Amino acid sequence: MEFSSKLLENAVYEISQLPGIGKRTALRLALHLLKQPEEQTSHLTSALGKLRSQIKFCSNCHNISDVALCEICANSKRDAAIICVVEDIRDVMAIENTGQFRGLYHVLGGKISPMECVGPQDLTIVSLVEKVKKGGVSELIFALSSTMEGDTTNFYIFKQLEGVTVKTSTIARGIAVGDELEYADEITLGRSILNRIPFENSMKA
Amino acid sequence: MEFSSKLLENAVYEISQLPGIGKRTALRLALHLLKQPEEQTSHLTSALGKLRSQIKFCSNCHNISDVALCEICANSKRDAAIICVVEDIRDVMAIENTGQFRGLYHVLGGKISPMECVGPQDLTIVSLVEKVKKGGVSELIFALSSTMEGDTTNFYIFKQLEGVTVKTSTIARGIAVGDELEYADEITLGRSILNRIPFENSMKA
Repeated sequence: MEFSSKLLENAVYEISQLPGIGKRTALRLALHLLKQPEEQTSHLTSALGKLRSQIKFCSNCHNISDVALCEICANSKRDAAIICVVEDIRDVMAIENTGQFRGLYHVLGGKISPMECVGPQDLTIVSLVEKVKKGGVSELIFALSSTMEGDTTNFYIFKQLEGVTVKTSTIARGIAVGDELEYADEITLGRSILNRIPFENSMKA
Repeated sequence: MEFSSKLLENAVYEISQLPGIGKRTALRLALHLLKQPEEQTSHLTSALGKLRSQIKFCSNCHNISDVALCEICANSKRDAAIICVVEDIRDVMAIENTGQFRGLYHVLGGKISPMECVGPQDLTIVSLVEKVKKGGVSELIFALSSTMEGDTTNFYIFKQLEGVTVKTSTIARGIAVGDELEYADEITLGRSILNRIPFENSMKA
């Protein structure tokens, strides 16, 4: 792409650094901003700048938060003995939306992935292990993606906790509610038979 | 979506104002920026801010340009008597890439679209008509999208030029090079038969 303007070229380059956005989309977005009132661009840039420079993480669960202790951790009605281990804030939001969990979270900030150069030291695993060793935690629920990396991360944390008395569980894997059996993949279907649950339990929630 | 942070919520809201970007994608982009070094965000925001506040348009063709007269208009080797009328800078870039046009451009900044509240006064039509009336222009090539709005805009400019001696043409519509006839739509195929060209001409370029 040859640009008639360095300003435009530079803006397109920076926008196309975002994941999933190519040069053509970046150009479309830049031209869109040029057609909109100048305030839209200044609102966007100031929101991004503030986000990046002022963002804080909850000192207990490492979730993104504007205050030192996030709303969930500060809520005395929630059960601090049950901790749900998740990758990032999106998982917290997804689980909160279900209204089925009243414990606290621990946000790892990702999962162990040698392919993407993410090791245990890049995640908040040490702080999780310390928290559990300190006592007061009765159960850890692993709620990571059901992938090789998610399983590796679960197992790594599990090994770190050897000798510590804490119940560990993972969220159930199985056929999604509303799904037809014939389209389910073999591994999921196989595991859902092995890990079958009492019929009475399936009526809950 | 319920956010644990106002900063994050605000950033997601502003990103999702961009066309084709929903709340989920906006959240993914915001979290991506948080994981990258702080410089990436500052480079992005400064590039966008500069683009919006310092952008200039060529005084002759209205294309985006860092200088008062764009490179194309300032190039004495180009034929100022032939003007290609386009919607925006992307069309200029696309036609320049073909290497088949040695005249100048006139960038309208859009096309007449009552649905999107774009009237003739929002485009650079007056300046185009003045330029042609001043003389020195032998041909106008309309290179707008082949849509209702594009055709309306072409026709509006054509009417404004009544009584002015200038040749007007539109870029050829027809079967794209490499396309199979059976998949072409009827209107395109029908027009390509009506507007057939001498076989010798098809061997050029």
